[in-house]
Amino acid sequence: MPKAVCIISGGMDSAVSAGLIKQDGYEIIAVHFNYGQRTQSKELECFRQLCNDLDVVERYEIDLPFFTQIGASALTDCTIEVPTNGLEDGVPITYVPFRNGIFLSIATAIAEKHSAETIVIGVVEEDSSGYPDCRESYISSMQKAVNLGTKDETKIEIKMPLVHLKKSEIVSKALEIGIELSHTWSCYQEEDLACGVCDSCRLRLNGFSQAKVDDPIPYKKS
Amino acid sequence: MPKAVCIISGGMDSAVSAGLIKQDGYEIIAVHFNYGQRTQSKELECFRQLCNDLDVVERYEIDLPFFTQIGASALTDCTIEVPTNGLEDGVPITYVPFRNGIFLSIATAIAEKHSAETIVIGVVEEDSSGYPDCRESYISSMQKAVNLGTKDETKIEIKMPLVHLKKSEIVSKALEIGIELSHTWSCYQEEDLACGVCDSCRLRLNGFSQAKVDDPIPYKKS
Repeated sequence: MPKAVCIISGGMDSAVSAGLIKQDGYEIIAVHFNYGQRTQSKELECFRQLCNDLDVVERYEIDLPFFTQIGASALTDCTIEVPTNGLEDGVPITYVPFRNGIFLSIATAIAEKHSAETIVIGVVEEDSSGYPDCRESYISSMQKAVNLGTKDETKIEIKMPLVHLKKSEIVSKALEIGIELSHTWSCYQEEDLACGVCDSCRLRLNGFSQAKVDDPIPYKKS
Repeated sequence: MPKAVCIISGGMDSAVSAGLIKQDGYEIIAVHFNYGQRTQSKELECFRQLCNDLDVVERYEIDLPFFTQIGASALTDCTIEVPTNGLEDGVPITYVPFRNGIFLSIATAIAEKHSAETIVIGVVEEDSSGYPDCRESYISSMQKAVNLGTKDETKIEIKMPLVHLKKSEIVSKALEIGIELSHTWSCYQEEDLACGVCDSCRLRLNGFSQAKVDDPIPYKKS
């Protein structure tokens, strides 16, 4: 069976992406990053549950403490507040500089070690926060770089099965392929009851609402 | 003054690269990676000395403990021996999978934070161990990816001033611009007296020999 290195954050998108590649007949090498984000413990808990659900063959829990050294984002610098008034134009302050570039580079090292020819990342381009490292053009360019910067016999394709989907379509896909959505977490700032008002909660709730499905995770009463 | 994020390993090449960019009038933001390599302490000591020598405006010492989790290289897995019989064809076992990709991605995050338009890396393509992530084609491709994966206002050029130089030319350049070569370390496996026989020592010694200059660092008696 071919192997795919799946970056699994504990969110809905990466869980569905991993589920889809499994359906395509791949063995999953799961990779999760603890980068000092506000909801690190909850995301790690979800990652572990999803790894069990997806019956992964190998898992990497990678600590990246330097992200808080760099900061420059509301997710990794606790002195910067997470915005809760709804999505605005431009790149939001929750953008973590080149986070997916760093994640993909580490996933590449793991793929090269295991001779895996596929990396899977759950980026969503349009129905999202507008992070530059979630764009298809970037991921395609990164794939080229990755293949030039590794051994000649290493051939890596970076798949992004959700890149042009809407959140509601992702919710539907999740139900279709049997992803346990109670094992995913999206809130940027809370670990027990999702806040419901950060950009990530808003995008998620909007997706469930448009898909006419109830979100199984608990939210704060507003 | 323009700012350049310089990846400084503590080796000769990155020190000379940083010295050259300083000469061009840049302020240096120095970045060093502790990735569990065998000679981590010695390289960090050299980094700190070089930062003082180069009068850098900011420095990042970044811990990357996950490299030993991935392993797959004689530098990060102590159960794999460092080869000492001289360079052979092909990619040697000291190659650390996509190391420069990971380093450049983190340097990109730092550059974006500081609005630095330049990253400097001391890769050498021909007179080297033949690592795929030291090739000009890779670095150029990575530059494209980096610019697509960051904010539209972030513009980054990745400079590699030594990429086509020979080691002897690097030694001469170092003397010409006043890099203190006793503050650099190249040996892959020893921290007190350089072994003189690993690939990195051999390349270094060969460079000094061809430049007809004495290497100021101490070596084991053979």
